[in-house]
Amino acid sequence: MKHTKIKDLLAGSSLLQEVVAKGWVRTFRNNQFIALNDGSTIHNIQCVLELDAFPEETIKRITTGAAISVKGTLVESQGKGQKYEIQANTLEILGDSDAEKYPIQPKKHSLEFLRENAHLRIRTNMFGAIMRVRSTLSYAVHKYFQDNGFFYVNTPIITGSDAEGAGEMFQVTALPLDGSAPRNEDGSINYKEDFFGKHTNLTVSGQLEGEAYAMALGSIYTFGPTFRAENSNTSRHLAEFWMIEPEVAFNNLDDNMDLAEDFIKFVIKYTVEKCEDDLLQLEARLIDEEKSKPQADRSEMTLMEKLKFVLENNFKRVSYTEAIDILKGSKPNKNKKFQYLIEEWGADLQSEHERFLVEKHFKCPVILFDYPANIKSFYMRLNDDGKTVRAMDILFPGIGEIVGGSQREERYDVLIEKMQALNIPEEELWWYLDTRKFGSAVHSGFGLGFERLVLFVTGMTNIRDVIPFPRTPQNAEF
Amino acid sequence: MKHTKIKDLLAGSSLLQEVVAKGWVRTFRNNQFIALNDGSTIHNIQCVLELDAFPEETIKRITTGAAISVKGTLVESQGKGQKYEIQANTLEILGDSDAEKYPIQPKKHSLEFLRENAHLRIRTNMFGAIMRVRSTLSYAVHKYFQDNGFFYVNTPIITGSDAEGAGEMFQVTALPLDGSAPRNEDGSINYKEDFFGKHTNLTVSGQLEGEAYAMALGSIYTFGPTFRAENSNTSRHLAEFWMIEPEVAFNNLDDNMDLAEDFIKFVIKYTVEKCEDDLLQLEARLIDEEKSKPQADRSEMTLMEKLKFVLENNFKRVSYTEAIDILKGSKPNKNKKFQYLIEEWGADLQSEHERFLVEKHFKCPVILFDYPANIKSFYMRLNDDGKTVRAMDILFPGIGEIVGGSQREERYDVLIEKMQALNIPEEELWWYLDTRKFGSAVHSGFGLGFERLVLFVTGMTNIRDVIPFPRTPQNAEF
Repeated sequence: MKHTKIKDLLAGSSLLQEVVAKGWVRTFRNNQFIALNDGSTIHNIQCVLELDAFPEETIKRITTGAAISVKGTLVESQGKGQKYEIQANTLEILGDSDAEKYPIQPKKHSLEFLRENAHLRIRTNMFGAIMRVRSTLSYAVHKYFQDNGFFYVNTPIITGSDAEGAGEMFQVTALPLDGSAPRNEDGSINYKEDFFGKHTNLTVSGQLEGEAYAMALGSIYTFGPTFRAENSNTSRHLAEFWMIEPEVAFNNLDDNMDLAEDFIKFVIKYTVEKCEDDLLQLEARLIDEEKSKPQADRSEMTLMEKLKFVLENNFKRVSYTEAIDILKGSKPNKNKKFQYLIEEWGADLQSEHERFLVEKHFKCPVILFDYPANIKSFYMRLNDDGKTVRAMDILFPGIGEIVGGSQREERYDVLIEKMQALNIPEEELWWYLDTRKFGSAVHSGFGLGFERLVLFVTGMTNIRDVIPFPRTPQNAEF
Repeated sequence: MKHTKIKDLLAGSSLLQEVVAKGWVRTFRNNQFIALNDGSTIHNIQCVLELDAFPEETIKRITTGAAISVKGTLVESQGKGQKYEIQANTLEILGDSDAEKYPIQPKKHSLEFLRENAHLRIRTNMFGAIMRVRSTLSYAVHKYFQDNGFFYVNTPIITGSDAEGAGEMFQVTALPLDGSAPRNEDGSINYKEDFFGKHTNLTVSGQLEGEAYAMALGSIYTFGPTFRAENSNTSRHLAEFWMIEPEVAFNNLDDNMDLAEDFIKFVIKYTVEKCEDDLLQLEARLIDEEKSKPQADRSEMTLMEKLKFVLENNFKRVSYTEAIDILKGSKPNKNKKFQYLIEEWGADLQSEHERFLVEKHFKCPVILFDYPANIKSFYMRLNDDGKTVRAMDILFPGIGEIVGGSQREERYDVLIEKMQALNIPEEELWWYLDTRKFGSAVHSGFGLGFERLVLFVTGMTNIRDVIPFPRTPQNAEF
């Protein structure tokens, strides 16, 4: 007989029928009540065993983590805490779980312990909830773009370009590291002998290729892994993370801000609607976590309130120049509480400044735009003032930068001048320059770090807890 | 005034209203008729210029590839070939395209030339159609799984495991190749000094991590890039390609076959419905291509007929043992036309054998199952006969293997014995073995090479033409 998912059983559609449930034992009380979970939902189904109806040998093997199959009648529950339960008449142990050895006991484990057991942490309520939310957010990303006429583009992961300009890169090679790799006459490595016939890296961004596609398909988006070989051992950085990069022909920076805001609101709204049970679990976790903090550091809003706040309020749009004025006059700047004091226009904003603007000053998501040209990338469109570019960053409470985007420099002459000033070799980006030579047009796009979005929506605080198997310095386990 | 996508204009909803269209010139006839495309659809909108209404300077700049903005009234067309057109009253050149230099002329280019211009080939009808179909297929993949209660899992791209067992791997490193990398006392490279503190590669499959997730969430799927460092310069192989890997707890091999067949039919059906115009274009291309072939080599069915044939017929399920019998008695085997003659049970099937079974013998998609254990991977479930495993391959006409899957060996003792026999170190897969130690259960899954599916649906014949920027030996351009 086919089994039914617990999510469907709990919806009650098979009431008073014989059903089979399969899953993993979460708890077993009084030799009678099994809480069974199969991952389809955060909720367990209670399976009730009639006392003495099952051999003791079987009863003993009903331990936390064991896989079992239960056959019985789905009935309305008389007990508290669940609407339906299974009156079991057959029970089969599919896979034992030695209670002495199983790492995931029904008690509170530290997040660090769970990271070391990333292959099993997914069997906890917390991580089941996080990863179901992550999956739903992913789908919302695709749904938003596909419903709005965007085409999904898989830009390359292995890149021959060193000029993507977003950070340190990992090298990809089929050559040996022991010094025996073939050499050129000048002693340098002869990459012509490597697999791709050139030096290759893992991509830090699909933007440049995405631009080429936007200049033909109109509206495109990427959603794939990107990499940074930076030794940042923080709760906000991963060496491997997933990025979403839409790019739209004929969009200027205002259109770009509208798109980003509309997009973020859609995916949060969709996820709040689809994952309410998981989010309530994560909200309770967060409240519990915050109890260990001093009152002043606790969040004023619950997780659900924070999400609804984002949905119901406009993101505040503030130019870099205005932001500098606000920061210059701010208390922490005057009292020298900032680690990096803001003294003049042109300063690069640090995390402390971004958080001040978002969390203390505006108390809502903020879009900063029109940054100084010299602290931003070569491909951003120069404003007529000659010193700022049409860049935008979206800053979120608790997370900091969640989106970085810009209107792109569509003018061939201006772009090439910028590249020359920064010593970016033209021959490496010949194809990118072609998009400005042939039918160039205003266009804009942005990158959203998916894990930062998952952090925000789940209320987790360490980015290693929102991706299945995190890659960080000194860690590529599993 | 905001512009409207050409797809929406061609749907006629703004009839007799003033509209703005932006896009790229495909052709310009008689100084009067512009065929304008913006990538939203394969169809161009005709923009009609009143003679002598625009300065000659502007007219000269309306060249193939130029980006323009046209304002005018959307009217029913009097001419043939289109229902609606724009009577232009304003025209702006957004970006010129030097007719002498623009590589994508309105004529037939070879596929090889277009590969060398992968950043511009997307501006042709053919590649616009291919990439829109690819995008729609991607979305159908997510839609199928999400609608059926699967969770999307991002398994790691950078892996510390050498034991995924699906092929040659690329190394990922932050160490130098010039011989100066730190060494251990025995002279070997000291990978503890590398970024991740160990030797790392690009993943060849997310299956093992996917299994760990299925044993908690029930039904999961991956859809991400995978890599092979194999020097296969063929029309069916890429060094970087996208793979879909579902994994389902409690599914046996029959359930796995049902899932694969249902899944493939769904995504093809969805795409046929959503992309009819693009597929008709690709069908016409294929008919044209086949004209250069001898009659006997031409396909008996058009592209649409082939797709509908797959939707309407059951995949033929045949055991490896039956297949060997068929092949042994086949004409090409008896006449020694096969390069590798099938002489006895246990032979590994080559592409020529698979194609014979699918294209000549059964003339439909075929699922081969229960392969000899010693030609398949360590993690596949051993049958009671002790010599075959619960593996399945799905073979498609013209494509060959499109899916490889299996029921997984859920028995700890059997799995460990297989690993020992193959010298796969237990300490490397400790976490994978844990899934068999704690609450193990029957489970199954498969991998589908996404580009092979796109090949089949688009009717293209070289895999380099169905991914935006292909990575192959000696090629990582763009």
